[in-house]
Amino acid sequence: MSTPSGAPARIGIVTKRGLAATDHLERVDRWLRARGIEAVYETETAVAAQLAGAVTCDRDDLPDRVDLMLVLGGDGTLLSMAARIAKARRDVPILGVNFGSLGFLTETRIDELDGALEAVLAGTALYDERTMLTADLWRGGERFDTRIVLNDVVFTKGALSRMIELSVSVGESLVTMVKADGLIVASATGSTAYNLAAGGPIMHPRVDALALTPIAPHTLTNRPIVIPGSEIIEVRPHIDQGADDIYVTYDGQFGYPLKPGDLLRIRKHDRTLRLVKALGRSYFELLREKLKWGERGGRT
Amino acid sequence: MSTPSGAPARIGIVTKRGLAATDHLERVDRWLRARGIEAVYETETAVAAQLAGAVTCDRDDLPDRVDLMLVLGGDGTLLSMAARIAKARRDVPILGVNFGSLGFLTETRIDELDGALEAVLAGTALYDERTMLTADLWRGGERFDTRIVLNDVVFTKGALSRMIELSVSVGESLVTMVKADGLIVASATGSTAYNLAAGGPIMHPRVDALALTPIAPHTLTNRPIVIPGSEIIEVRPHIDQGADDIYVTYDGQFGYPLKPGDLLRIRKHDRTLRLVKALGRSYFELLREKLKWGERGGRT
Amino acid sequence: MSTPSGAPARIGIVTKRGLAATDHLERVDRWLRARGIEAVYETETAVAAQLAGAVTCDRDDLPDRVDLMLVLGGDGTLLSMAARIAKARRDVPILGVNFGSLGFLTETRIDELDGALEAVLAGTALYDERTMLTADLWRGGERFDTRIVLNDVVFTKGALSRMIELSVSVGESLVTMVKADGLIVASATGSTAYNLAAGGPIMHPRVDALALTPIAPHTLTNRPIVIPGSEIIEVRPHIDQGADDIYVTYDGQFGYPLKPGDLLRIRKHDRTLRLVKALGRSYFELLREKLKWGERGGRT
Amino acid sequence: MSTPSGAPARIGIVTKRGLAATDHLERVDRWLRARGIEAVYETETAVAAQLAGAVTCDRDDLPDRVDLMLVLGGDGTLLSMAARIAKARRDVPILGVNFGSLGFLTETRIDELDGALEAVLAGTALYDERTMLTADLWRGGERFDTRIVLNDVVFTKGALSRMIELSVSVGESLVTMVKADGLIVASATGSTAYNLAAGGPIMHPRVDALALTPIAPHTLTNRPIVIPGSEIIEVRPHIDQGADDIYVTYDGQFGYPLKPGDLLRIRKHDRTLRLVKALGRSYFELLREKLKWGERGGRT
Repeated sequence: MSTPSGAPARIGIVTKRGLAATDHLERVDRWLRARGIEAVYETETAVAAQLAGAVTCDRDDLPDRVDLMLVLGGDGTLLSMAARIAKARRDVPILGVNFGSLGFLTETRIDELDGALEAVLAGTALYDERTMLTADLWRGGERFDTRIVLNDVVFTKGALSRMIELSVSVGESLVTMVKADGLIVASATGSTAYNLAAGGPIMHPRVDALALTPIAPHTLTNRPIVIPGSEIIEVRPHIDQGADDIYVTYDGQFGYPLKPGDLLRIRKHDRTLRLVKALGRSYFELLREKLKWGERGGRT
Repeated sequence: MSTPSGAPARIGIVTKRGLAATDHLERVDRWLRARGIEAVYETETAVAAQLAGAVTCDRDDLPDRVDLMLVLGGDGTLLSMAARIAKARRDVPILGVNFGSLGFLTETRIDELDGALEAVLAGTALYDERTMLTADLWRGGERFDTRIVLNDVVFTKGALSRMIELSVSVGESLVTMVKADGLIVASATGSTAYNLAAGGPIMHPRVDALALTPIAPHTLTNRPIVIPGSEIIEVRPHIDQGADDIYVTYDGQFGYPLKPGDLLRIRKHDRTLRLVKALGRSYFELLREKLKWGERGGRT
Repeated sequence: MSTPSGAPARIGIVTKRGLAATDHLERVDRWLRARGIEAVYETETAVAAQLAGAVTCDRDDLPDRVDLMLVLGGDGTLLSMAARIAKARRDVPILGVNFGSLGFLTETRIDELDGALEAVLAGTALYDERTMLTADLWRGGERFDTRIVLNDVVFTKGALSRMIELSVSVGESLVTMVKADGLIVASATGSTAYNLAAGGPIMHPRVDALALTPIAPHTLTNRPIVIPGSEIIEVRPHIDQGADDIYVTYDGQFGYPLKPGDLLRIRKHDRTLRLVKALGRSYFELLREKLKWGERGGRT
Repeated sequence: MSTPSGAPARIGIVTKRGLAATDHLERVDRWLRARGIEAVYETETAVAAQLAGAVTCDRDDLPDRVDLMLVLGGDGTLLSMAARIAKARRDVPILGVNFGSLGFLTETRIDELDGALEAVLAGTALYDERTMLTADLWRGGERFDTRIVLNDVVFTKGALSRMIELSVSVGESLVTMVKADGLIVASATGSTAYNLAAGGPIMHPRVDALALTPIAPHTLTNRPIVIPGSEIIEVRPHIDQGADDIYVTYDGQFGYPLKPGDLLRIRKHDRTLRLVKALGRSYFELLREKLKWGERGGRT
C-alpha cells in the first residue's frame, strides 16, 4: 500500500455503458460541488445521465484532466480507464464502485462511496499499487502496436479452429510449444479474472510475478507457471498457424488477429496503477466474499 | 465387444489429407487383390497416391459401396468417415490405422495392418461397439439440421467474445445456465478427446453415458457432469447472445454460428459404430500409452 | 424413480449423534401416533432426546423392525443406516432430513418433513433407486471382510506416509499402478461427496457406472475414470507397501489398515437403496443449491 | 544465479539409502584424490559402499566439515542435507546427482558428474540460489520446535480422519478456514513437488513467493494462492480438531501430530541454499523433460 497523496481538485467520472446511474451521479455531483471539487464527466456518461451543464471530456483525454478517477459500475469500465491512465503516463488513482455485485477491482459499494471520497479528500485513504503489463506487437521487424493492461494479455483461437500452437519463451529460454484453446499471460491483479477460470492460481496483488496459464491444453501436464516479474515473455504463433487462427485480446476489452511471423513481447509496465482501497475490506475478505469460501455444505 | 461378422468382399480406403502413403497403399492393394477383395478408394486418396486404374468413389458415397472401411492416418479422418457411415445407416466397421503417433481411434499401427486385415477376413477380429450422438438443430420451429458425431458436439465462443451463456437442460430439468468459454457434450468415445483437455473425466467406451463439460467456466463449481445415455440434452443460447457469439462444432470437423432462438437437442444415436479392435491392445493399455502413465519422475 | 410402495406401519427413527432434536422428535412422535404408526427409536436417539416410554432398538437391528427409516441430521448418519439396511437385505426406504444445511442425501428440510411423511403414507411419494457397492477384502486366500457402501470405498495413506502405491484392475485388465495420496472408488451417489473434492466428475444417480478417482496423483495425467457398472474392480497394495501404509475406509464411516497381499474386490451390490425424494426438488436443483451455481460474480 | 565461489578443498559425499553406488563412489574417490581434494563420507554411505579407510562423518556434522556437498541418488536425500546445511548456517552448495530418473533437485546425471565437478573446481559452475522456509511451532506460549525446509511444510489428516480444519492467516489477515485433506505451504522450489500433485502452480525458482495449496478441499473454490515471499503465514488447527487429527510434515522427511492450540508460523528463511546447476540444462528444459511436455498424442 502506498502512502496517501494530496487531495484531488478535479475528479473524473465514468459509468459503465448502459448503467442507469443518474440519481447517484446527481448526488455525487452535489457532494463534490459542496466541497469545491470540479467533476469532469466522460462525454457518454454525461449524455446518458442527462447531466445538463456538466463539464465533459472524451474517455481518452480524461486522464490528463483529473487527479482522481471515479469509475462506477464494473471491472470492465475500470480496466478501460486503467489502460488510458497508463498510456497518458499520469498518476491518477482510480476509485472503483460497484452496483450490487462486488468486483475484484470495483470493490467499493455504492453506499460506501461518500466515506471513500471523504477519506480520499482527508488524505486518509489507502491505495493499492497494482502492477500493469505492457505488450509490444512486433510485425515485419517493426514495433507495430503497444498496449498496456492491468489484468491480462490473452491468446485465443478462432471460432472454428481446433486449437492454437504458440511458442512461448521467458528471457532467452524456450518454455514450451503450447497447443491449447489459448494462453493467458496474467498480472497478479488479473489472476482472479480469466486466469482463475482457466485453472490458474490466485496471486496476491503484491506478488511480483506473472502467470502463464494455458486454456484447455492438449498436453495435460502443461500446468500454469508463475514467472518472476522481472522476466520478459515472448509469444510467437507457430509457423503453421494461418492468418485468422490466433487472436490476441487485451484486458478482454480489445483484440485483433495475429499474422504469421508476429511476435508479442510482454513485460511488467514501468508504472503502477493506484487503486483506492475499499474501507475496511482486506484482499482476503474480498476473495472470501467473491469465491463464497466456507459455504459449500459438501462432503458428507 | 460384438461377435465377428462375415468377411468383407469390398473394402473402402481413405487416407488423411496430405499423408504420403503411396507405398503403403500399393502394398495393401496387392495384398487385397491377392485375396480377391475389391478395394474402393476415396477419390482424393487415389489421386494423391497416383493409383492408376483404381476403383474410386466420393467420400460421401463410400459407405454404400463397401463392407469395411480402412482409414489410414488420423482420428480426424476416421471421425469424418464415422459420420458418413452413420448417416448412410450402414453397418460398415472401421479399421483405423495410425502412422507413428497412436490415436485413440486409429489404434492399429501400420506394421500391424496385415495381421488386423487377416483377422477381419478370418472372422476372428474383435469389434468395439461405440455409441454415437445425434444432434438436431431447431431453428424457427423447424428441424434445420441434423448431425451425427462419434466424439462430441462442442459450443464455443467467437474469437473476440468474452464468454458464452447457454441454458442447458436434461430431460425436462434445467441443469444450469453455463457461462464459460464453451461447453462440450461428449460421448464415452469422445471423453479422451477435447473433453479431457477441458478437465472432463475419462469414460470407458462401454459406459452408457454422456459428459457435459464446461470449458473455463466462470462459476468455479461448474464441474463436469456425467448423464445417463438415455437422456436428451437441450442447449439454448442465452437470449442476450448475439448472432456471431456462439458456434457449434461437430467432432471438430464442421461447424457454424448459432442464432438467437436456436435449440440443439442431443441424444444417443440409434445405431452404433463398430471399430476393429487392435490386436492384443486393451483399452487401458491404450490409455497408459497415450497418457504416459507411470512415467513422471515427479514428487520427491 | 421407482413406483410408490405400500404405506409403512412402523417407522424407525435415528438422529445424528449430538443433535438436539427433542422438540422435533416429540412432534414427529405425536404426528405418527395420531396416524396409528409405530415409531421405533434407535436406542441412543431415544436416550439423547429423553423420550420416556419410547420403543427402542439397537442401530444394527432397526432394519429388521421397520418399513421406513427416518434419518434426521446428516449424510453421515444416513450412510451408516444405508449400510445396515443393505446388510439386512431388507427393502426399507430412507427419508433423510437435514437441519439447516442441505445434504446431498438428506435433502428434505425439517419444515418439509410433515409433507414428505404424508406423501409416503398416501403412496404418492417418489423414490430414488440408488446403486450401492459391495467390497470384499481377500486376505490369505480367504474372504476376510465384506462391506456395503452407498458412497465410496476409499484408499488412503497413513498420516506420515508420502504416498501409496496401488495396483488397480478392471475385469481382467490392469488399469495402472496408482501412486497418489489415495484412491476413491465412488458410486454415482458418492460422486458428489469425497470424489468431487478430489477432482472427480459429478455423476447423475441413474448413471450405471463407478468412478475411479486418484487423490493428488504423482502422475499428473492419472485422471478420473468412469467405469461401467457391470465391471469388477480389483485393488491391491503394491508389494513394497508396509503394514500401516494403506488404509481402506467405507463411506467415511469405518476403516482399517490393509496388509501386504490384501486384495479388495469392489462391484455393484445386487440390491439398491431407496431414498424418498424431497418434494419438488430435482437432482439438478439440489446441485445448483449445494454448489452455488450461477452466483460467482467472477470474471470481469 | 549467483556468481561462482572459490574451489572447494573438502567435499562431503552422501548417497541415498539402499543405493548401490560403490563403483561410482570409488571412481569419484580416485577422481578427487588425484586433484588433492579431501572426500568426507557420511558414515552410512561409507559403510554401505564398503569404503575402507574413508574419512567419515555423521550426517548432522557434515555441513561443518565440508565446502561442497555431493548428493547421489534422489531428491529426498538432497532435502535432508539441505535442512542440515541451513541449520548449521553454513554456505555449502549442493551438487545433486541422479541415477537414471532425473530429479527436480538432483538434476545432474551420473555421466555428467565429472564435468560438473570440473566446473566447480575451475570456478565456472553456475549456482541457483534457492529460497528456504523456516517453520516455528508454538505450543503453550513457547517456541517448541523450529524446522527449515527447501520444499514444503505440509499439514495432513490422520489415516482414518475425514478431513482437517485449519485456520490460515497471512500477516494480520485471516485467509480462510481450510477444510480439506491437507494444506501445503510450498516454496518456489517445492512447487514442482507435492504442490504440483495437489493442483498447485509451477513457480519459477526465482519467484519471490510461497504457495498455499489445499489438498482435496471441501470448498471447491478454495484454489491455490500465491503469497509474497515477505509475508508470514500462520496455521492453526481448528479448535474442534483432536490430538491425533492433524500432522505436520517437513519436506516429506519428518513429521509429528499437532496438538489443539498449536500454532505454526512459516516464513522465508534468512539464508538461501545454493544448488550447482546442471551443465547446459535450463529450468524449462528440466520441466519439459520431467513433465513430458509436447509428447501427448492427444486431442484429435
